[in-house]
Formats: sequence, structure tokens, C-alpha cells
Amino acid sequence: MTVSFSDRANAIRALAMDAVEAANSGHPGMPMGMADVATVLFSDYLKYDPADPKWPDRDRFVLSAGHGSMLIYALLHLTGYARPTIEDIANFRKLHSPCAGHPENFELAGVETTTGPLGQGLATAVGMAIAERHLNAVFDDSLVDHRTWVIAGDGCLMEGINHEAIGIAGHLKLGRLIVLWDDNNITIDGKVSLSSSEDIPARYEATGWHVVSCDGHDPASIAKAFDAAVADERPSLVRCTTIIGKGAPNKQGTSATHGAALGAAEVSAARETLGWTHAPFVVPDDIRAAWLDAGKRGAEPHAAWQQRLSSHSERTEFERRIAGDIDLAKAAEAAFGEWDRIPASVASRKSSELVLEQLTKAFPELIGGSADLTGSNNTKTKATGPLTRDDYAGRYLYYGIREFGMSAAMNGMALHGGVVPYGGTFLVFSDYCRPAIRLSALQNARVVYVMTHDSIGLGEDGPTHQPIEHIQSLRMIPNLDVYRPCDAVEVAEAWALAISRKDGPSLLALSRQNLDYVRTGGTMLTEKGGYRIREAEAARRVILIATGSEVQVAVKVRDQLEARGIGADVVSMVSTSRFDAQSAEYRGDVLPGDVLRVSIEAGTTFGWERYTGEHGLRFGIDRYGASAPIGDLYEHFGLTADKIGAKIIERLGA
Amino acid sequence: MTVSFSDRANAIRALAMDAVEAANSGHPGMPMGMADVATVLFSDYLKYDPADPKWPDRDRFVLSAGHGSMLIYALLHLTGYARPTIEDIANFRKLHSPCAGHPENFELAGVETTTGPLGQGLATAVGMAIAERHLNAVFDDSLVDHRTWVIAGDGCLMEGINHEAIGIAGHLKLGRLIVLWDDNNITIDGKVSLSSSEDIPARYEATGWHVVSCDGHDPASIAKAFDAAVADERPSLVRCTTIIGKGAPNKQGTSATHGAALGAAEVSAARETLGWTHAPFVVPDDIRAAWLDAGKRGAEPHAAWQQRLSSHSERTEFERRIAGDIDLAKAAEAAFGEWDRIPASVASRKSSELVLEQLTKAFPELIGGSADLTGSNNTKTKATGPLTRDDYAGRYLYYGIREFGMSAAMNGMALHGGVVPYGGTFLVFSDYCRPAIRLSALQNARVVYVMTHDSIGLGEDGPTHQPIEHIQSLRMIPNLDVYRPCDAVEVAEAWALAISRKDGPSLLALSRQNLDYVRTGGTMLTEKGGYRIREAEAARRVILIATGSEVQVAVKVRDQLEARGIGADVVSMVSTSRFDAQSAEYRGDVLPGDVLRVSIEAGTTFGWERYTGEHGLRFGIDRYGASAPIGDLYEHFGLTADKIGAKIIERLGA
Repeated sequence: MTVSFSDRANAIRALAMDAVEAANSGHPGMPMGMADVATVLFSDYLKYDPADPKWPDRDRFVLSAGHGSMLIYALLHLTGYARPTIEDIANFRKLHSPCAGHPENFELAGVETTTGPLGQGLATAVGMAIAERHLNAVFDDSLVDHRTWVIAGDGCLMEGINHEAIGIAGHLKLGRLIVLWDDNNITIDGKVSLSSSEDIPARYEATGWHVVSCDGHDPASIAKAFDAAVADERPSLVRCTTIIGKGAPNKQGTSATHGAALGAAEVSAARETLGWTHAPFVVPDDIRAAWLDAGKRGAEPHAAWQQRLSSHSERTEFERRIAGDIDLAKAAEAAFGEWDRIPASVASRKSSELVLEQLTKAFPELIGGSADLTGSNNTKTKATGPLTRDDYAGRYLYYGIREFGMSAAMNGMALHGGVVPYGGTFLVFSDYCRPAIRLSALQNARVVYVMTHDSIGLGEDGPTHQPIEHIQSLRMIPNLDVYRPCDAVEVAEAWALAISRKDGPSLLALSRQNLDYVRTGGTMLTEKGGYRIREAEAARRVILIATGSEVQVAVKVRDQLEARGIGADVVSMVSTSRFDAQSAEYRGDVLPGDVLRVSIEAGTTFGWERYTGEHGLRFGIDRYGASAPIGDLYEHFGLTADKIGAKIIERLGA
Repeated sequence: MTVSFSDRANAIRALAMDAVEAANSGHPGMPMGMADVATVLFSDYLKYDPADPKWPDRDRFVLSAGHGSMLIYALLHLTGYARPTIEDIANFRKLHSPCAGHPENFELAGVETTTGPLGQGLATAVGMAIAERHLNAVFDDSLVDHRTWVIAGDGCLMEGINHEAIGIAGHLKLGRLIVLWDDNNITIDGKVSLSSSEDIPARYEATGWHVVSCDGHDPASIAKAFDAAVADERPSLVRCTTIIGKGAPNKQGTSATHGAALGAAEVSAARETLGWTHAPFVVPDDIRAAWLDAGKRGAEPHAAWQQRLSSHSERTEFERRIAGDIDLAKAAEAAFGEWDRIPASVASRKSSELVLEQLTKAFPELIGGSADLTGSNNTKTKATGPLTRDDYAGRYLYYGIREFGMSAAMNGMALHGGVVPYGGTFLVFSDYCRPAIRLSALQNARVVYVMTHDSIGLGEDGPTHQPIEHIQSLRMIPNLDVYRPCDAVEVAEAWALAISRKDGPSLLALSRQNLDYVRTGGTMLTEKGGYRIREAEAARRVILIATGSEVQVAVKVRDQLEARGIGADVVSMVSTSRFDAQSAEYRGDVLPGDVLRVSIEAGTTFGWERYTGEHGLRFGIDRYGASAPIGDLYEHFGLTADKIGAKIIERLGA
């Protein structure tokens, strides 16, 4: 008996509804609705090799509608990936199963990116497509020549980030990006018409996209649309008209299938409707074989690619780029390469630029950019020419006023591999890209955020532009390393640490205003996160803990105290996450409990109790900033050496 | 000599360039480019009365491109508002001048909303336009009949929130919203073509908008476009083709005019070009008189409106709504009105719904909504029918999958007045709307955020959906009251506090899972932010500080400790901002320093040192969550009473 298209598609439907049923939790509607589209994609279009999920020239597949996770789990399983096994799927949404509620790139090799927060999968895919075109231009078709496919739902298309992402993709004419829109006309609350009356194809066309439609349940119609999408030189939106939960006879086409188990009766009715007579989690051998055959399509092109690579003149460099190893010592050496060019008093955003000049020269994998603040973020260097639709070999992206789109695209680039993205905006607008920063961290993606204008020190732009809660709130994001360097030396060290870190993002908070040199010696002290940058000369009674621009303030306070015979250390707490990771012994040595500990940071004092203890003193700003020249602001908010010194002396009763 | 149109427009240009020059900081390009459009608007179209900036039926004017703040300062000054004075303008961007770098609604009565973070002004205006149509439907044309005008630049249109905002406005057919797009083809980095190649009019049309164009320097063309916009029943985008920095002969049309002073030479050249011979900050009497005449246009319609109000049958209710006073005791009484209907063990999102049923019945000004999670956020009540393009009297908004757009719209509703908005999403997606939450707080806007699924307690959806850092990071936002109520009583109290608070936003973090009743007595204890919800029976050696769903865990821990003769208080820390605002005496009584203090919250432990001291114990989760049933997760992350109790006993050596 031959295995029909429907048999293969129904295998997905059955696994999806059975897994959700077993978990009594999950989203059967989308996988059942998109089973036919996905079957065409994974059978005849997508380039992949289950035997090597990390084959560099594979097509990238992104399930932007991540709640439909059972779709990708079913596909990976059926096409022959080592994981998930059928047991993994039977344990969907249970502790330690790699089949988590939403697809996680750290759980399964076949999952390219963690999705679930809507809109971001598609925006991440834009970054993957940029990385592909860039590497294609840097190397050639024989090594890099693949597509990025996305399945997105109405939620992904309604989110604001969709606008930013498709704007970038349309502008860069990323013709190898194809978005399959699951046009099922249903959201959680009901019909799409409840909340939207937009002409989505017209909007995509206005943004430089090619749009084509198909009946998402007719394989011939789907294939025809895919062919048109592949042929067009613009990015493509394929409108797939589908029925959510297709196959569940009483619930399909309604939001009832979206986010809950169908229930035993409906699952049974669906089995009948689909003609699927097999027990839960059983896929008959012939259907399994047919799916495995689909998965084997990639072996031959993969072997041919491997052949081309082995004889390629740039093989070594290509493999180095894909491996993504950047040695810390080498990075640091490059960062300090032409050190003498850095002037004595310089804004950290400026010393960052000077360091970047060196690093972008030494590491061609660095791709920079800014959300329309190039001259303020100081992210552009001589080595990084513009990456445009006419020159994908460029290394600098003008992202436009799209902070969130930039950040998600950087995630995609980092996850694609072969490039290391960095991008800039003002620190206060970290709020605009915070959901993507979190996904960088959750996904272990090497992205470097260059966040300048990091305090009231930016001056006149006032409260809307002055970070208060931002640095501390970013420090709370697990697996994100936040650096607030105090001078050019720390800037260079932080950059070296950031680009050599393979397993997560880093964020540099940089000043608009000039900063004095503070560091007088030592090598890569920033690695410890917090360290003594000045030691007490008189008997130590105070430890001043500061970051960034406030370290120079702390040094002045220290000098005042020492002048009165009060010994004071200054600790530069350049990265709390790195400091917290040090041994208790080290931390106890730097911040012993029996000395008055004082924090100074031009932001919220909340959280500094961790380092000062509750009886320490905390200087900062627990309200919104103000619009005025910088000197007036530091005076107004009490963050001058004189004011801080006086309060410490008062506390000491000295 | 008659005063020409150009004279009036050039008065704006001169004030803008002179103020920026004096401050040596600011953005002259936009005010100079949009001076003609603004002159037409404030002379012939905008309904306003400088003598009463808070006249309820005034048109709302929103300068979404807030960096062009000198435009609105010049307009308010010239048309006769009490502030800013010419001295205020001369002190632009200086400490204590109300003419801050960006327009702040708390500095000047004529500034309707704080702008600067791009895209949000326009999105806020959508909320104002919703409030207007709603109040028009609830009352009538004689009391509420005004427009909302926005000036937006390319930055506002490129930001993702633009997509969400215009999607809402198009769907609701907000025909009285008119956006004037400053189409100057320039962004900070250079020409718009550097980063975007979108057909903006086509995109707006695809989203249900009317689009009309004009020459932004030709008053007749501008007026014709305004007339078309006013006549159309859809929201309108008026594309105003302008030259940035118009009048500065050597710099106009380039990004050099955008964000820096023109310099003395160019200012002098501009004076010549414009034929503006007057000294800085001098506006000749005849031009001043012409502008004041424009400002006086509103006096007559204002008087007529006052007349209509005085004889209106619903005058009392209208005035009550506009005043916006909600008495705390009355709100609490309503919240507890049909108390017995609340079941014994109930999710806080569900008790929130039950409370909302009462409150929406008692307070018709409450307007609810959700970003497509109505059934999960439990925000819909019987009293709140859908607000649609066909029924603006409805009180529930289906915002779609637009968390940020929803939040900004709520800001606009709150700032408009007459309504009190609340809206829901998952707590983890507070990241998506964080920039708007910050602006609620900065602007003292009464918005209530209903954030459900507030911890790993949501279970199977996994790490992308489980808040870790969110609650603490929200607590850091100045002027935002965050509540994490532990049971139905605290939910009711928190709601009463939230809606009766006039000067800022509140956020309720609510559970998906059922919670036991914990409170046994007391009235409005939530007002204190933190209080003893259980007192030690044995000699007190421990204080357990917990929030939300972890309070019931703390009570179990306490019972275990008491069973061993170890006295333990349980403190419910329902709102840290409220607790921090209590007297030192009160705080010291609740959390004395000489007892082991232990925090329990299913989120980051960062920051809890403030309440436990550094030698206390902190139970929480400092990494990402996992996908599994709730019970497994609490066990996995060590947040069960047994595990916590054991560690406390170990610490006590008991």
C-alpha cells in the first residue's frame, strides 16, 4: 500500500493531538491546521539533513508561532532526527522532556531558535537571512546558499516587531526569506475580525515584499505558491489559508482548538475523521518509512557540499567562522592594539569606538549596526562598510529606528553562526528591545548590545532619555552579562570578554560624557566583575563600590577621606554577574562585612543592598531624572564627591 | 503693517533656533521644518483655549516627535498660555525650566502627554481618540466632540508600536484622529533611504486609514489636506512634505539640523534668509498680537460649551467623570460587595475577575481590555460590552496581539480623562509593554495593568512564558505600584487602591493557579504594602517574607516551624513601593533586624536583600524556568514548604 500525502500529514496531526492530550496542556490547533503545509515543506522544499542538524548550509526553519511546538517536534521525530524520540514526545511538557511547551533551541538540535514570545521568531529569521546573504557574499554559492523558512500566525503578524522586521527584510531585499502565514482567521479571543481589519498582503507589499496565496490544505496549491516564492527576488509572504485544528470535526475552525487539549471524545472523533486508526504515539512502519525517506533527501546535497568544502580555498577560514571560537587573550590583544591613540579623558562610548576600530579589523566576523544612532553610539568603524541590498559583504547595518527589530535580528545572526553581531541604541531604549535581550540570554546567543547615554550624565534630553532602573533591571536577566566600564581600559576588557563569550549575550553601558582614566595597572581585571581599583592607604574604614562614570566620583571621595586619615578602598563593580560568580573567598576579600560599604551608581539604589549590606550607604537616584546640563544634574541629585564624602563622614562620626 | 503667515511661522523658527542655541543642545530641525504646518493647525484648525488648558472638550495635540519640543513650547507661548513664559523658553533645557529637553506633561499644562520615546506619542493619541469617542457615545455631541492631532516623524512611523497603534485606530475607525507626518526624508543617520524603502501611504491605507498629502510649506495646500482629513470618516494620515531645518540656508534638508545647535554663523544666516531681524527671544508686538488672536479663537466655543454643560441633564455625572476622583473606601466597599461569591480556593486572576465584576458595575468609567488573552487574564465582565467601531459606548477593548499598543492606548485614555483604563496580558510580556509602563509612571497616569500567569506556577508553557526577573524589575520603576496579592482579600484591596490612585499606574501580578485563603482579618492592610499576616506563637526566631502564591507556602513553613517550637511571623509583602513609603518605625516593627528574615518569591532573589538583610535567607529562582506541571516545578526549584523549612532549620541549627 502506498503512503499518501494525507497519511504523512495525519501522522503530524495524530502526534500533536495525542501529545497535547497526554499532557492535558498545549496547542493542538496550529499543528493540525498547518500539517499539510509543513508536510510539503519538509518533504520537497526544505534543505536539511537529520543526520547532521548543524550542517552549516542547511535551510533554517523557524516556527515563529511557537505555541504550535508539537508541529516541529513531530517533524523532527518523523524525519529522523536523533531527538526527539517517541518517548520524548509522549512526555511533551513534562519535566526533563526536550519537548517543552515552546520550542527551545537548547533542548533540541533541530530547533534553530526558541520561540513563543510572538513576532520574535519571524524577526529572528530576518537576522538568519541577513547572515546567510552576508556569508554568501564573503564566501560563495558553493559554501553558503540556503533559505530561511518561517511559519507565523496572526499573532506574529499583529505584534509591532513584525513591522520592524519586515521593514528590514524588505529594505535589504532578503529574497531567500519565505514566511508561511497560517491564515486561519482565529486568535485566542475569537475571530481575527474582533481586533483587526488590516489588509495584510497589501501591507507586506507596501514594505517591499512579494505575496502569494495558497490553499493550505491542497499540496499542489502549496507547492505552486512555494515555487513562486522561491523564484521571486524579494522576501515572500505565502498566505496559507487553513482551518485551525483541521481534522477535529466538532472544534476545527474555532479558537477552542487553539490552546487546550481537545478532550478524549473529540480526539476519538478526529481519529475517525482522519481515518487514523492507530493507537496514541504509534506511527505505522510504512508511514514512518515515507517520512524517513523525506528526511534522507538532504544526505546527497550535504555530501556534495562537504566535497566542495574540502577542496575550497577558504576552507580554514570558513570553518573558523562557523566554529565561532574567539580566544579571549587574542581578543584582548587586539582590543589594546593601538592603545596610544586613546586620549586621556574620553567618553566610554568613544573609547568603545576606538576599541571597535581594532576589533573589527582583527575579527571579520563582527557585524555592527545601530538603531539610527550611529554617531551617538559610536558603533561604526572604518572596517565596517554598509551592508545593503547591493552589497551583502558589508558589515554595518543601518537598522533604522527599530531597536527591537535590530535586537531580534542580531539574535538570528548569532544563532545562524559565522558572524558575531553587535548593535547600539541608548540605554533607556533597552526597554524597547528587552524581550529580545531576554531571548538572547535564554538562547545562549552571542550578541553584544552597545547601550550608550547610560545615566543622567547624558544631560539635557531629560527624564524620557535618562536611565534610572535600567541597569539594575538588566542585571537581573539570567545569563546576560552587563558591563558598566569606568574607563577605556575596562571598555577594552569588556569588549574582549563579550566577543569571546560563546554562550550568551553581553551588554555594555557606556557614557556620553568624558571619563577620567582610573585604572593604573593589572590585566583583565574586568573578568572578575568587581575588584579593588584603589586600595586604602590609611587604616581602611570604608569601601566605595561604584560603576562606570561614578568610579571617578568614588576616587575623588576616597581622596577626600584619605586626606582626613580615613582609609578607603574603591571597588569597580564593572559586572555584577561576573562578580557573583567568583568564589565566596574572593568576594569576601573584596567586600568584607566589617567595613562600611558604600555604593555609588547614577541609577536606582534598589538591589545594591546585596553589596553594601543593609547598614551600608547607597547613593543613587530613586526617581526620574531632569533636563539640565550634566554638572547641574549631578549636583541636583547629590552625586558629587563633596556631597557623598560629607555623608560618609557624618555616618562615621569622623 | 499686516502680519503675514510667514511672520507667524518664522516666530516659531526663531524661538526654536535661538533656544537651542542658548542651550547649546536640542533639536532645531523639526520645529523649523514643521513651523508652517503647525501655524496652520494652531491658527485655523485646533480647538483650544489657552485660558483654560484643561477645558475637557479641547482638541488634543500630541507632539509625537518629542525631540522637536521647541515647536510646542513656541506655540504654547505665542498663543497665550500662562506658561511657558519667554524666560522659560530662554532657559530651555536648564534645571527647573518647564521647557525640558522633551515635552513633559507634568511641567506644562498645555502638554497633553510626555513624548520623546519614539512612536509612543502617536500610540498614546490613539487612546485619547478612543476616550473621546467613548465619552461622546456615553454623553453626547454637546459635551464631547473634539479631535486628536498628532505630529509624527519618520522615527515614530518606523517604530514597531506604530503598526500596533494604527492597527487599533484603523480597526476602530477613529476618524477624529489626524496624524501629520513630517515627511522630511531625514533620520539621524542620514536619509530615510539608508534604512527604509517602505511605501508608507500604502501601508496606512492597508490598515484602514485615509491618506492625503500636502506641501508642508504651502498654507493653502496644508489647509486643503486638513479639510480632507477632517471630512473623512477614517483616521487620517496627512503626509506633509517638508524641509528639515527650513530657513537655515546652509544646513536645511540635512540631518545636521536634527539634533544640535545650528551655530552662531548659521543662526545669523537663517535670520537673513527668513528676514527675521529681531534679537533672540524678541517677538515683535504685531506678530505677538496676531498669534494671541489665534489663541483667542477658542474662547467663544469654550463659552458656548460651558453654557451647554451648565444646562445639561448629565452635568453632575460628566463633571464627576472628568474630575476623576474615586474614593478609596467606596472602591473597597464595591470590591467586597458580593464577597460570598468568591470560592474558597481560587486563582488570583479569577478573584480579580470577581472583583472586577463588582467594580465595573459600580464605576462606569472603568474600561477594560486584553491583548488577546481575555479568557486567561479574566478581564472581561458582564458590565463591559465590546467597544467597537459600531458601538463606542462599549467598555471592553479587544486589543489584539498588541501588548505595547494596548498599554500606550491606555496611557492616552488615562491622560484624556473621564475614563480609567485597565488591560491584561501575561506578566512575562510586561517586557513587550515596558516602555509604555514607564511612561504611565513618568506621566502620573492612572492605568491598571492586569498581569496574570505571574510565575513558574503557570506550568507547562515553560521558560519563555515564566517570569523570573519581571516582578522585581517592575518594582524598580519609579512611581509604579506593583501588587502581588496572596489571596482574594488582597486582590480586592489592591484593586481598590489601584483605581482610587489618581497620580500613577498600578500593576497587579496575578496567579494562574488556585491560591488558598490566607487573610483572616483586618481592613485594607494592603495599603501598608507589607504587614504581618501571621504572628509567631512560639518565641519569634524567624520572619518569613513572601508575596502572592508564595504566601501560602510561607504559612506552611511557619506551621512546620511552630510545630518545632520555633516562632515565626509571616509577612505578606504585597507591594514593596507602599511598604518602603511607610515610616521607619512601622518598617522596623514588621521587619526588625535581630530576627532571621527569609524571603520567598518564585522569581529572582536579586534585591530581596533590602528586606532580609544580607545574612537572611532568600528563596527564589535565579535562572530560567522549565516546562512541566506546576507541582513538579515547585519541587524542582526547591520552593516547597518542606525544602524551605529544612533549610531554615539548618540555618538555625535547631
